Amino acid sequence: MSNPSILILPGDGIGPEVMAQVTRIIDWFGEKRDLKFDVETDLVGGAAYDKHGVPLSDETMARALEVDAVLLGAVGGPKYDNLDFSVKPERGLLRLRKEMDLFSNLRPAQCFDALADFSSLKKDIVSGLDIMIVRELTSGVYFGEPRGIHKEGNERVGINTQRYTESEIARVARSAFELARKRSNKVCSMEKANVMESGILWRDVVQEIHDAEYPDVELSHMYADNGAMQLVRAPKQFDVIVTDNLFGDVLSDCAAMLTGSLGMLPSASLGLPNAEGRPKALYEPVHGSAPDITGQGKANPIACILSFAMALRYSFDEGAEATRLEKAVEKVLADGVRTADLMGPDGGTPVSTTEMGDVILEAL
Amino acid sequence: MSNPSILILPGDGIGPEVMAQVTRIIDWFGEKRDLKFDVETDLVGGAAYDKHGVPLSDETMARALEVDAVLLGAVGGPKYDNLDFSVKPERGLLRLRKEMDLFSNLRPAQCFDALADFSSLKKDIVSGLDIMIVRELTSGVYFGEPRGIHKEGNERVGINTQRYTESEIARVARSAFELARKRSNKVCSMEKANVMESGILWRDVVQEIHDAEYPDVELSHMYADNGAMQLVRAPKQFDVIVTDNLFGDVLSDCAAMLTGSLGMLPSASLGLPNAEGRPKALYEPVHGSAPDITGQGKANPIACILSFAMALRYSFDEGAEATRLEKAVEKVLADGVRTADLMGPDGGTPVSTTEMGDVILEAL
Ligand SMILES: CC(C)[C@H](C(=O)O)[C@@H](O)C(=O)O
Ligand SMILES: CC(C)[C@H](C(=O)O)[C@@H](O)C(=O)O
Repeated sequence: MSNPSILILPGDGIGPEVMAQVTRIIDWFGEKRDLKFDVETDLVGGAAYDKHGVPLSDETMARALEVDAVLLGAVGGPKYDNLDFSVKPERGLLRLRKEMDLFSNLRPAQCFDALADFSSLKKDIVSGLDIMIVRELTSGVYFGEPRGIHKEGNERVGINTQRYTESEIARVARSAFELARKRSNKVCSMEKANVMESGILWRDVVQEIHDAEYPDVELSHMYADNGAMQLVRAPKQFDVIVTDNLFGDVLSDCAAMLTGSLGMLPSASLGLPNAEGRPKALYEPVHGSAPDITGQGKANPIACILSFAMALRYSFDEGAEATRLEKAVEKVLADGVRTADLMGPDGGTPVSTTEMGDVILEAL
Repeated sequence: MSNPSILILPGDGIGPEVMAQVTRIIDWFGEKRDLKFDVETDLVGGAAYDKHGVPLSDETMARALEVDAVLLGAVGGPKYDNLDFSVKPERGLLRLRKEMDLFSNLRPAQCFDALADFSSLKKDIVSGLDIMIVRELTSGVYFGEPRGIHKEGNERVGINTQRYTESEIARVARSAFELARKRSNKVCSMEKANVMESGILWRDVVQEIHDAEYPDVELSHMYADNGAMQLVRAPKQFDVIVTDNLFGDVLSDCAAMLTGSLGMLPSASLGLPNAEGRPKALYEPVHGSAPDITGQGKANPIACILSFAMALRYSFDEGAEATRLEKAVEKVLADGVRTADLMGPDGGTPVSTTEMGDVILEAL
């Protein structure tokens, strides 16, 4: 039997730097745990645009659909800010999400004990925080038609369409309920049903799926504006949050920042399972390409490494190995090893991106 | 000459309770400062639905268009949760905004010194915070067509439309730049131009208005998801934020909660100036109808009182009197007078809604 395959797309900015550490970790699992992967590397985002004139080539797209998991670093950078909308680095990422049909975006917002002081929130509000945001990722205003800018009379009009079908809502709701069953069995669904009809449909379908298939899970509904407030006020009231593509974008970033350790947060984007029950999947850190620190050895590789841990868990059914990797990261943090973004008033041992990779490998 | 006219719409839940204190304050200004207003009171929201079967009657709408300012308490409550979308309490408020053409919604997020400890954020992150969010209020996904839920094949589809014209963006941008000139001369505009064409138009128009008419104001652009992060991470980096209706809804609530004193925050919704230069205007607290504490004398009337202060400033050109009222509120807080929502570990003198009105009147 051949090894499971991974397509690595380091992308732009600090993407390649943090991904280099992940590659070392993948190698370690192959050597020490006999978990071998066939790894190939390709371009996405600005890097792909520079070579191919598009932020994702058809060949890369085709490979992404064939492999067992995609690991992505980050896309974008000031160099590409003035590109046409259709070839912006982001379009490469959005194409992957859409064509791989990665409808369920898992964004854990977790506060690491060793880093609780880094949050702008009071320690007791965030310590022990462990939320999972499930964001719908292939529909809504990100992909709805009609869209664009056109002329009406002598002025321009900008249009986007928020559009959700019942089945699109149902499948992401199921994915949230499934996750909740493995956690604290509690889901909060967020929309603006008081203002948007698409929000009414969202609320109704989530409730129907709940009543028919997951009556054992505790379900609540909240308006997204109140959701933003409650995340700031008392985030620990939440376990799993399920919401649409656009609210998910804003609320998951808000939740991520609560933890104070953006450089730590991974994400998984999952699609439908294939014949062997393995979902189409893309894993990426929540942080961006960080052009300001690119090439300086300052980037924190942990979010990207923990994204690989999510791959072990969700794509390769290696939950125990995922936990091993997560524990190694926790140990390193507890030992006070810190990349630049984690250097706080409490001191700690400053390390570069590569050195962080070193100590995590040691801890493994 | 007749007195300026005010239409009071207390609405639902704690709306009538907090508005009762505002009425006393209006009377005080009439008696003590010779600032007399012709005040009339009417129904909105669930209260209007109960009487008229609609959340805002045509008569009330007509009066709102005639008076010099509208003061609104709050709308909504569990009793009305299952009403049809078209007659929900919120529709009353949305009709007022739309027909009065109140395109510029000013939402200050201000942290009161005496209350800095109430924030879930660390004191140094929020103390002295003073942001003004300018939210577009009459367009975008709140009002765009097509909208609704319809059947496609055998499934339901929910649709809303985000739609912005150049002139809609231009006028709210101007209102943000004007405000910035009276403050720290700094505007940050937020959208998702990396994903939405309406966001591209937004960014372009804001930049054009800036370059042509307000080159002296410092302008920056930020993606709304990053905006949510930055609000949590370091809110004091902002002065004026301008954004669309939906992002404004979520981001202003997020910003409001940073201050830890939601019961304190007023808002103004302004339209075009009439012949005398007075804008159409509606003032309301940022907090909701708070059904859980309705009728218990626990509600904090300060947000509603400060909304009247905004009316003094923006509708009646009585900036000095507005400041007088704001100072009275600050004094009362500094003295440790506290409604239930403000009772913290530091003690303080607990008071009811009416007693809070009493002490503010005394302080005046
Ligand atoms: C880069 C951008 C297109 C993307 C999004 O808006 O979804 C990012 O913000 C994210 O949250 O993954
Ligand atoms: C009550 C509701 C319609 C309203 C909105 O969504 O605009 C509220 O949340 C607000 O922010 O004023």
